[in-house]
Amino acid sequence: MLFFTQCFGAVLDLIHLRFQHYKAKRVFSAAGQLVCVVNPTHSLKYAPTRCAAAQASTEQGIIPPCHHHEAVHDPQLVPCTCPLFSCPWEGHLEVVVSHLRQTHRINILQGAEIVFLATDMHLPAPTDWIIMHSCLGHQFLLVLRKQEKYEGHPQFFATMMLIGTPTQADNFTYRLELNRNQRRLKWEATPRSILECVDSVISDGDCLVMNTSLAQLFSDNGSLAIGIAITTSKVHNSEAEM
Amino acid sequence: MLFFTQCFGAVLDLIHLRFQHYKAKRVFSAAGQLVCVVNPTHSLKYAPTRCAAAQASTEQGIIPPCHHHEAVHDPQLVPCTCPLFSCPWEGHLEVVVSHLRQTHRINILQGAEIVFLATDMHLPAPTDWIIMHSCLGHQFLLVLRKQEKYEGHPQFFATMMLIGTPTQADNFTYRLELNRNQRRLKWEATPRSILECVDSVISDGDCLVMNTSLAQLFSDNGSLAIGIAITTSKVHNSEAEM
Repeated sequence: MLFFTQCFGAVLDLIHLRFQHYKAKRVFSAAGQLVCVVNPTHSLKYAPTRCAAAQASTEQGIIPPCHHHEAVHDPQLVPCTCPLFSCPWEGHLEVVVSHLRQTHRINILQGAEIVFLATDMHLPAPTDWIIMHSCLGHQFLLVLRKQEKYEGHPQFFATMMLIGTPTQADNFTYRLELNRNQRRLKWEATPRSILECVDSVISDGDCLVMNTSLAQLFSDNGSLAIGIAITTSKVHNSEAEM
Repeated sequence: MLFFTQCFGAVLDLIHLRFQHYKAKRVFSAAGQLVCVVNPTHSLKYAPTRCAAAQASTEQGIIPPCHHHEAVHDPQLVPCTCPLFSCPWEGHLEVVVSHLRQTHRINILQGAEIVFLATDMHLPAPTDWIIMHSCLGHQFLLVLRKQEKYEGHPQFFATMMLIGTPTQADNFTYRLELNRNQRRLKWEATPRSILECVDSVISDGDCLVMNTSLAQLFSDNGSLAIGIAITTSKVHNSEAEM
């Protein structure tokens, strides 16, 4: 009986997944784009010590890297960067991907352009939607966060981090795009390195930011489709050299 | 002596204007784009009665048109829409442009693509930067507003309104683009009609929104360059019919 119940549950999940996928395909009609349904990640609390300094820098206009305190450890070690988990793990850059996959069960997708379909946008803050994206020989971490930066006013923040060094991150440009209800919002930037802190990027608002009413306009039945593209950024490098 | 002092002042103004223009040209290197330097508009107070209902609708996710109360007057009359002025004027749509030019000294620019260069971004909220844009046989009003939606946290809001009816507005798409410091932010939407209320558009966040730290990243020496493009939106119309 238990077996049949589990089978029925799995079939229902598949139908739901197929429906979400169909919705995303309808929003992003470009052929060949991979659509990934991302369910929310809940957390009991933020990791308070990891980025306390970065949190204090809100609205200062300066983006402080918050990996200085890591220097007391082996500088080659990276603390766990899965945003909402108070995870004590730390390890070398090369094994961050396998840690995120195995311990935090974060999916990894291949392809230069994918569609990130975040479900259940209505859930209260703080909530994260996280995925890894493998592209151009590197792995990136996309974080969509619902957070109350101003009390009683939840906002959505989306950013992309390279699972690599800041120097490697400078070689790429990522683009996030929302397109629905006769509105289009695009954000393009150089990804930050995972050695920096996602919390400080979000608290500084140096990412794609939307309030809930705008997110509702872009969402379809509680799901938000974000088109993601990653390119190499030789133009940016030549600009920096000028 | 007074004559020479005035001449010297005028020359200084011209040099300043030329410098601002050069800065904008440097930011937006696309040849042939018209750059317009827009100085801030201060106001002693908001017009409290004009859009009180709209202000109350913040974060509801619904964008209420706030011209219902105009029905007590001649419905063909439009109240003065210059955002921060408590102007008692009202008149027909056809004479709104001349009223804004003559009474509020708002400049009007020609061309499908222009660069709006807002100066003195550091000024405290509330501050507006306003310009009219003549394009495709119609006139549009661009409003950039610095406002404290959440106390102590000023934000920048930019939107475009058609000086025409909502039906006419549906035929266009406007695009606002910021591009600097390896970041690019684009917002595309159908302009609202000037018969609706700019205050409600901004309070709902259904426009381009930036916090001050992000605006600083996009600004150059206290000036913010916004590229503006207006097109006809046949694609949107065909989508709506589907």
